[in-house]
Amino acid sequence: MKTLEVKLPGGVYPIHIGAGTLDSHLAAMVGGIATELVVVITSRTLNEDCPQHVRHAVKALADLPLRVETCLIPGGEENKNMHTLASIYDRLMELEANRSTVLVAFGGGIVGDVVGFAAATFMRGIEVVQVPTTLLAQVDSSVGGKTAVNHPQGKNTIGAFKQPVGVIIDLTMLETLPERELRAGLFELIKHGIIRDPELLEYLEQNAEKFGGRDWKFWEEAVYRSCRVKAGVVQEDEREGGLRAILNFGHSLAHLIETHTGYNAYLHGEAVGAGMLFAAFVSQAMGCISGEDFSRLRQVLEPLTAPIMLPPLGRDGFTKLLMHDKKAANRTINFILLDQVGHAFIRGGTTPEELWPLFQQFLEEMPGVLRVGDG
Amino acid sequence: MKTLEVKLPGGVYPIHIGAGTLDSHLAAMVGGIATELVVVITSRTLNEDCPQHVRHAVKALADLPLRVETCLIPGGEENKNMHTLASIYDRLMELEANRSTVLVAFGGGIVGDVVGFAAATFMRGIEVVQVPTTLLAQVDSSVGGKTAVNHPQGKNTIGAFKQPVGVIIDLTMLETLPERELRAGLFELIKHGIIRDPELLEYLEQNAEKFGGRDWKFWEEAVYRSCRVKAGVVQEDEREGGLRAILNFGHSLAHLIETHTGYNAYLHGEAVGAGMLFAAFVSQAMGCISGEDFSRLRQVLEPLTAPIMLPPLGRDGFTKLLMHDKKAANRTINFILLDQVGHAFIRGGTTPEELWPLFQQFLEEMPGVLRVGDG
Repeated sequence: MKTLEVKLPGGVYPIHIGAGTLDSHLAAMVGGIATELVVVITSRTLNEDCPQHVRHAVKALADLPLRVETCLIPGGEENKNMHTLASIYDRLMELEANRSTVLVAFGGGIVGDVVGFAAATFMRGIEVVQVPTTLLAQVDSSVGGKTAVNHPQGKNTIGAFKQPVGVIIDLTMLETLPERELRAGLFELIKHGIIRDPELLEYLEQNAEKFGGRDWKFWEEAVYRSCRVKAGVVQEDEREGGLRAILNFGHSLAHLIETHTGYNAYLHGEAVGAGMLFAAFVSQAMGCISGEDFSRLRQVLEPLTAPIMLPPLGRDGFTKLLMHDKKAANRTINFILLDQVGHAFIRGGTTPEELWPLFQQFLEEMPGVLRVGDG
Repeated sequence: MKTLEVKLPGGVYPIHIGAGTLDSHLAAMVGGIATELVVVITSRTLNEDCPQHVRHAVKALADLPLRVETCLIPGGEENKNMHTLASIYDRLMELEANRSTVLVAFGGGIVGDVVGFAAATFMRGIEVVQVPTTLLAQVDSSVGGKTAVNHPQGKNTIGAFKQPVGVIIDLTMLETLPERELRAGLFELIKHGIIRDPELLEYLEQNAEKFGGRDWKFWEEAVYRSCRVKAGVVQEDEREGGLRAILNFGHSLAHLIETHTGYNAYLHGEAVGAGMLFAAFVSQAMGCISGEDFSRLRQVLEPLTAPIMLPPLGRDGFTKLLMHDKKAANRTINFILLDQVGHAFIRGGTTPEELWPLFQQFLEEMPGVLRVGDG
């Protein structure tokens, strides 16, 4: 069991990481703040696939002198919207929630985002405990306080910064996580090593054979170090003034992949995996890291990738997707590159025009990672 | 022209008060922060009744090297909801707004609340300039950063704290304000004198003959002092931990009146006017202020009241409405009382049972202020 403290101007909160933290830490955390009502909010999908986890969370709270209620929301990126948000408000009104009510966001990144935003806005802000149940949510979305829902025309367009009372990462939740989701989450975990913690990267390289297994000691160390990187970046730059952008390593191409395939074909982590390989490839092509460095990164990343097939994509489409369809006068983006393994930097003023030939090269050299259809 | 600075942990922002501040201050304030796009958001009602004001605001921005766009939202308390909020997000997406876009909330309290909340949540927070055009909004809702929309089952249930870049109070907007709204706004202004600034109260007593007129020097001083009280309270207690509750002086009965009459029959200020007289009455009945003090307050408040007629209301209904329909175990409320003219305090543990006979007495003694129908 490990505990990480996130220190922000608005306060300090703990992230408890280990196998069994749900039993050891949830009740104490909720009991310390709730006076009357706690509402465990989770997705219907999780509740159907793994009802034992939801029961586990409710049971962990049963001994507190509080009303414990649940609220089920539809899962899936297509339901991360204002309708689902409204259904949470409706349920809270039905339960006569008030300012002292505490929410428990129990699920993956989508649940964390929507419930976090509901907590940020219900009665102008109530407390929330984040209990991420997927590897991706554990090392990414549950740390940093970004919450949001999608607008039909833009992902995460409506949201707020909302720091939780605390985050409880119970690694035993990973036992039922589908292999594909575990692998996808690993990319974000490895990302933290690549951009800011060479020791984490080495630890992962040395323990790659444990990626598919349930060695909790390994996962505890890996998740702890990964969360520490993210928390460190967020602490230095809560509102994304600058540094926080390095967390977007691999995300330029990932967003392009997700937008171009309609968000349903591939998991976010899978898109990020291909994007990280591309960003490393660009870093090498631009002379920021050596060919040896690139080979090393390729060795840890490539075995985890899912082969991604994009619909036909020409230069104009590439440019448009990279620029998020915006008709910005200044047609450049911030692209995150590496200047060494374990250190990323933000390259402002990067143009789609300079990335296009590199993208073509990347497709040629790594057809197993990313292909573009002929139309 | 006067400027008041509001100092909060998150930063400092100015409130410019005077006749003509729209011309003298809006462009400079927006120009200082917007890089590309400014969106003036106002209500269809205001745009139809006083198109010259909206044109005035747009014209004041015309010389800036920015796109200036407008967004019209439906007016009225019944439209202060998530649908209107969604229509703002839609318009912002249509205009290709981004994180550097600045909103101008141009209108009364409802516009300020909805637009402020949109600014708090669009792309996790963009900047907003508040330009309140009613007296009520000028002295109340534009200062303090409370923003919200209504849930079908609860007023202001969904919201956020969002401090604006600045507030521009142009008193000439009051020229077209209907007499009834001006009078209703005066109650909140007088309230600030009664709860925390005896000199403001005296100033208002001495200038009561100017209440209906357009003496900008008078209004400048009155609005400035009133905003200063509100800003002072907010500075000491941004998130309503304690002190901020004194701003609710008169609001327990006001909320009861508004809920019981369905929000449409009377203006918020009118309900607050009756509520303030009741709170002063209770203060006297409980021996907190003298009979002389009460007479003095009655003299300034009563001439401004609109006679309010409530539907039939028995003891149970009174209790239920006062408790906001909540089945709270601890059936008490915080009631704001005066211990002297110019100083309010929070009386916790007040029960509907002790207020009921005082309410009956109040009805008997002031039938011109408040009556309850026989059913």
